[in-house]
Amino acid sequence: MKLTDLSADELNTRQSELLSAYTQFKEARLSLDLTRGKPCAEQLDLSNDLDGILEGFFLLQNGTDVRNYGGILGVPEARQMGADILGLQPAQVMVGGNSSLTLMYNMIAHMAPQWDAEAREINSKVKFLCPVPGYDRHFTICESFDIEMINVDLLSTGPDMTVIENLLAQDPMIKGIWCVPKYSNPTGHTYDEETVKRFAQLGKIAGRNFRIMWDNAYVAHHLTDNPARLHDLMDESMQAGTEDNLVMLASTSKITFAGAGISFLGTSEKTLAAFEKFLTPQVIGFDKVNQLRHVRFLQDGGNLAEHMNKHRTLLGPKFEMVQNKLQEALGDKGIAEWTRPEGGYFISLDTLPGIASKVIKFASDAGVKLTPAGATYPYGMDPENRNIRIAPTFPSLTDLEKALNVLVVCLELASADHLLSQ
Amino acid sequence: MKLTDLSADELNTRQSELLSAYTQFKEARLSLDLTRGKPCAEQLDLSNDLDGILEGFFLLQNGTDVRNYGGILGVPEARQMGADILGLQPAQVMVGGNSSLTLMYNMIAHMAPQWDAEAREINSKVKFLCPVPGYDRHFTICESFDIEMINVDLLSTGPDMTVIENLLAQDPMIKGIWCVPKYSNPTGHTYDEETVKRFAQLGKIAGRNFRIMWDNAYVAHHLTDNPARLHDLMDESMQAGTEDNLVMLASTSKITFAGAGISFLGTSEKTLAAFEKFLTPQVIGFDKVNQLRHVRFLQDGGNLAEHMNKHRTLLGPKFEMVQNKLQEALGDKGIAEWTRPEGGYFISLDTLPGIASKVIKFASDAGVKLTPAGATYPYGMDPENRNIRIAPTFPSLTDLEKALNVLVVCLELASADHLLSQ
Repeated sequence: MKLTDLSADELNTRQSELLSAYTQFKEARLSLDLTRGKPCAEQLDLSNDLDGILEGFFLLQNGTDVRNYGGILGVPEARQMGADILGLQPAQVMVGGNSSLTLMYNMIAHMAPQWDAEAREINSKVKFLCPVPGYDRHFTICESFDIEMINVDLLSTGPDMTVIENLLAQDPMIKGIWCVPKYSNPTGHTYDEETVKRFAQLGKIAGRNFRIMWDNAYVAHHLTDNPARLHDLMDESMQAGTEDNLVMLASTSKITFAGAGISFLGTSEKTLAAFEKFLTPQVIGFDKVNQLRHVRFLQDGGNLAEHMNKHRTLLGPKFEMVQNKLQEALGDKGIAEWTRPEGGYFISLDTLPGIASKVIKFASDAGVKLTPAGATYPYGMDPENRNIRIAPTFPSLTDLEKALNVLVVCLELASADHLLSQ
Repeated sequence: MKLTDLSADELNTRQSELLSAYTQFKEARLSLDLTRGKPCAEQLDLSNDLDGILEGFFLLQNGTDVRNYGGILGVPEARQMGADILGLQPAQVMVGGNSSLTLMYNMIAHMAPQWDAEAREINSKVKFLCPVPGYDRHFTICESFDIEMINVDLLSTGPDMTVIENLLAQDPMIKGIWCVPKYSNPTGHTYDEETVKRFAQLGKIAGRNFRIMWDNAYVAHHLTDNPARLHDLMDESMQAGTEDNLVMLASTSKITFAGAGISFLGTSEKTLAAFEKFLTPQVIGFDKVNQLRHVRFLQDGGNLAEHMNKHRTLLGPKFEMVQNKLQEALGDKGIAEWTRPEGGYFISLDTLPGIASKVIKFASDAGVKLTPAGATYPYGMDPENRNIRIAPTFPSLTDLEKALNVLVVCLELASADHLLSQ
């Protein structure tokens, strides 16, 4: 029954029940963590063979010794793998170190002086569009370059393209947009074909210095038998002549080791050449030994899919647990909505407006850490204070269940408090 | 006999002999490379056990799983190793990815906005002191941040400190200095105790935003039984209260794998905390798996010294070959001076003024690549056009001998041409 349909008395009674349950949780002195999208140890174990896989063979097919200096764009074999993952040509792909975030940061650092020069000319500020809810580390990069962020709603089909097109037409200082187009962080939505097609046209409105930061972090991270298909933005962009605007990213952080994988950046050959020039003063080359390890380990598309299926076997039950727990406890109460991702690392949970921070505080006081309120929004400001990101991958199934038991009680309790105070 | 003491006739005869030898070299169609300070394959082989050394054990002593995200300053065990190498406390050291150059670049990127703000205030430019000859990649970092470079002579005792102290006293916009204090690139000189002591005082003249970039790239790279001892600059700096000015760098690039080692940055805890804050938006953490590999492989000081001795066994004969060849062919001719490094990766060779680029061109035309003329100077401009950097580590002993045979003939031929044209 909906909480909003209860009489004041019934609601008071329910509040007391919840408070009693909550007090018990507090007394249990739990210490559980649903904050970050980290793989669990069992997932990491899947890739233990990476270390030692080279067996003393360090030469590429072209004779290059990966142990020595050089080659800023990465080894050909790894560029091919990145191209396969991103749906690009190897010449459009570079392979970086253990962090695609670093590649993103550097792409912004590379463009920022040009953007700033434009902004000074018209006495304005550089701006970025941020589909929300989104990924906090994208927003932090903008903050560190003093780039103003503009929220755009993320719909189940992708960002609201009409809003985006209108904003770009009005303001020439909007220089980029952050996207997680597949199994989006945190909602799990995958952009639909029409959205992707409209993305390919944005460069025509926004100009040559506009960058679509297409962070395909969960490109291979399916949770179903019929994985979502993301339409090919590079193909559309090349047809539209906007490929220089497109920067695709991916990494093996959630395929092999989260702290020791390899990263990929894909874009037009022109944009890649300019980016290589920007990187040259800061590095002689990324870790090619680790690139070769990954090539050997994930060798071809078949191996990758097989490997990702093992992840799915570990993660599927956790995502299912979240759905079941939420449905069971909150399904008929009219106080929460949540997404049902078919891949990725998160579930996005919306509370009644105005109480997300309270729910998170309640949970924290009962020993269950959740991602801070607002973290999925630029400047940490969720304008409706209702979004909570659930990261179910790291804890064990048992701990996850305990944490969810606490979360649903906290959410209902905060909702009851809220309704009673109105 | 000195070339300058020859009569014109004798010099003409010698020129003919040299030209004939040179023509023979050209006909041999050699393809040899003395350009970059790369380890040779046999050196890299010394560290092949790195891959696979973890044998499935990925946990630190404190229980951290190195395969997962987090820990931007590096794993405690590796920070301890960096501290041992740099002569610091672990709390003063962070461990980065495969490139200390990236750490240097980021330190400059971190400071640049503050420096630029100061420069704008007094309508000046940010400047750096560059002991010359020096390392081209240091200079490239300055160029990429539009930092003006000022040459300072590198003496056999280290940079000319009197010049440095005077320049700093005159110009508040000199914000840093590049140093390779031990077995300097390319001269091989190690700064003496008095020089190091004077370095500790520089912060008092130059102010709190001044940075000594103390690139200790060859800290463990000895070629003799009694290795040069570099006086402890951190100790001196802490006594002088200038430790925030000091940034020490090192890496295992020339200890293990040149493209896949780990890097260290050491400084005061205050400067390190500010730098960590700067790094946070661009990376979640560096490759901790590779850090742990290196800890296991080089475990303690004894292991490192033993390991470096194996390098010495491979490199010693090459450095000896250079000395012997140069001495044999040029020792009595008064047309060249060169250094006799007791460690490091290079020999610095000075020709008669004005002809280094010609020697390098001659050698290149005969199939022997040398580091481009001027590369050891800011902006690629050797004001006297006389410095040539010899990098003997990468080629085999046989190839090195061939290349040196060509080099000495090119040098004497260019000298004879030069003397005859005067």
